Amino acid sequence: MDQFERLSQLPLRDDLRGQHPYGAPQIDVPVLLNVNENTFGVPLDAKEAILKAVADELDGLNRYPDREFTELRRALAAYLGHGMTQENIWAANGSNEVLQQLLQAFGGPGRKAMGFPPTYSMYPLLASGTGTGFVTGTRAADYSLSPESAAEQVRAQAPHIIFLCSPNNPTGTALGRDVVEAVYEAGEASQAIVIVDEAYMEFSHEGTPSALSLLPGRPRLVVSRTMSKAFALAGARVGYMAAAPEVADAVRLVRLPYHLSAITQATAVAALRNSDSLLANVEAIKIQRDRIVDELTRIGLTPAPSDSNFVFFGGLEDPRSVWEGLLAAGVLIRDVGIAGHLRVTAGTEQETTAFLSGLRAILAT
Amino acid sequence: MDQFERLSQLPLRDDLRGQHPYGAPQIDVPVLLNVNENTFGVPLDAKEAILKAVADELDGLNRYPDREFTELRRALAAYLGHGMTQENIWAANGSNEVLQQLLQAFGGPGRKAMGFPPTYSMYPLLASGTGTGFVTGTRAADYSLSPESAAEQVRAQAPHIIFLCSPNNPTGTALGRDVVEAVYEAGEASQAIVIVDEAYMEFSHEGTPSALSLLPGRPRLVVSRTMSKAFALAGARVGYMAAAPEVADAVRLVRLPYHLSAITQATAVAALRNSDSLLANVEAIKIQRDRIVDELTRIGLTPAPSDSNFVFFGGLEDPRSVWEGLLAAGVLIRDVGIAGHLRVTAGTEQETTAFLSGLRAILAT
Repeated sequence: MDQFERLSQLPLRDDLRGQHPYGAPQIDVPVLLNVNENTFGVPLDAKEAILKAVADELDGLNRYPDREFTELRRALAAYLGHGMTQENIWAANGSNEVLQQLLQAFGGPGRKAMGFPPTYSMYPLLASGTGTGFVTGTRAADYSLSPESAAEQVRAQAPHIIFLCSPNNPTGTALGRDVVEAVYEAGEASQAIVIVDEAYMEFSHEGTPSALSLLPGRPRLVVSRTMSKAFALAGARVGYMAAAPEVADAVRLVRLPYHLSAITQATAVAALRNSDSLLANVEAIKIQRDRIVDELTRIGLTPAPSDSNFVFFGGLEDPRSVWEGLLAAGVLIRDVGIAGHLRVTAGTEQETTAFLSGLRAILAT
Repeated sequence: MDQFERLSQLPLRDDLRGQHPYGAPQIDVPVLLNVNENTFGVPLDAKEAILKAVADELDGLNRYPDREFTELRRALAAYLGHGMTQENIWAANGSNEVLQQLLQAFGGPGRKAMGFPPTYSMYPLLASGTGTGFVTGTRAADYSLSPESAAEQVRAQAPHIIFLCSPNNPTGTALGRDVVEAVYEAGEASQAIVIVDEAYMEFSHEGTPSALSLLPGRPRLVVSRTMSKAFALAGARVGYMAAAPEVADAVRLVRLPYHLSAITQATAVAALRNSDSLLANVEAIKIQRDRIVDELTRIGLTPAPSDSNFVFFGGLEDPRSVWEGLLAAGVLIRDVGIAGHLRVTAGTEQETTAFLSGLRAILAT
């Protein structure tokens, strides 16, 4: 009997039977452009500030951390602006945990969440993990979502929680503020919590609006963010949200006490104090992102417009063999399981060059 | 409209309405003996090792952490002994998260968990947060639990998950291995996952057996541990479990990807490499714990036998006023809401003296 058979004999929840753990392959190759990390790394001055902040925590590490992570909430509010205060902020170990807590507070058995695929594939998994139903909406053929279509689908489904991802993963395209407004209004009937997942917002083109400006007067609206991408801190696991203070109060009823370690809190606060330095590479990443879109268009592929640090591109006859060819050339990108398409993270200039020349070589054969 | 009224207007899950967030008061007084922390702190050599380990992670902090935290699982297996390997180990941000993941994998809607109060008060909350039902068993008047009584109650309730806390919080008393064996056997009919929460096991008297030795041949048995107590790392948030490898595989289906930060992993590995130093104060704590039991008995109170780093004591006419009197004297202990009783953590010799003399002064008035 192998381990899989032994697992099947445990009293596992029925909907988990036969499932596989979520996650992209963790393969060690020279150029990693598969999970939308910030490949520039953490600048030296930010590293020094983080290490000093961690050192300051060690004396009290035998004590439970501040359950309310007040200093971190204050620093996140200051970073976001838009009149946010610490009362508007909540954080957890990655934005996945923030979303899970929202589902625990507002979803659960007898309730349903809604997403618009292709979108972040964790939404249905997070719903399942909290006993929340999940229904899917549709997008136009070019993966866009109009305010009218989104609102009509929301009215038809009457979900309790709605996930809007902007810029959207895996397509990279940002939603207009009009879509958020229309969905919020359409969700009034079912009192839906509307979550705008802005994990990649810092990479958007100038003038792309954040849903943060829509928060006043919308107590059911939540904007989710992360320090994993623009802040180059995927390894530190810090996600957060901005919303009306009562949304944070709702999450307090389901959060595990002391869910954020003292070291995580100190790391994030130090990073936010050095945000200028940490975010300095965002412009360089946007340049590589735009370069990828331009060059892929030039070689006849069809990249989606991207406001994120990655590019979703179609026009591939055999994406699997392209993915494998790139891997053989030492470049790992992401096959998100959509016919004819792949997704690549914008890396440094060198990494982006490695991807583009690898791709050109494969397509030329 | 105040914040509480605004919260009540949100589409909160019905069972959360009117609830308050879990957690002991975080009050800053000189002597903190309320949440069973290791008050000795982290020794200098361990602090240096942790800081060095964190420094080594900073270069890669822009990357997602090892989703499988393999090095940490290996270090935890080596620490536990009992023939454990990394395949037997799973870890998360505090043992609360481990327990939540077990409830997500094996509990959920239509299933029920069982505990034996007075016991760790998070069990029913964790069940509620995962849509799992919760039923309570009973103990003898002296809070003990016999194998026969426990087995009979398990057969009557047929729960899907059973929590046994040993040493038990808040009473401090360890369960015999015969209780675990009897409960495991009685849970066969309902295929119950039996979780033995050994958060305080390192403080037990010599000869008190761990349920680790019962793991071979019992695929439904889980032993949960933490680095928050004996290891003096409550601020670092590291809990873990030992079980058959397929139990870890089940949890992989519900865990959030990358739930353990690179810094948390590095901190815990460094601490485990310095476990001799970190655990050096356990004996001093046990001496203070036994001193509290002796002295409380001498002044006519009724402390429960303790295998943990805290003492649960009865015989108080007005526990609330004793709690308040101690707080006024700068000593914070815990009112766990059980008539006539309070709970105190064994601290350093000085802290324990402050508690005992404060208590004597209050009872003498």
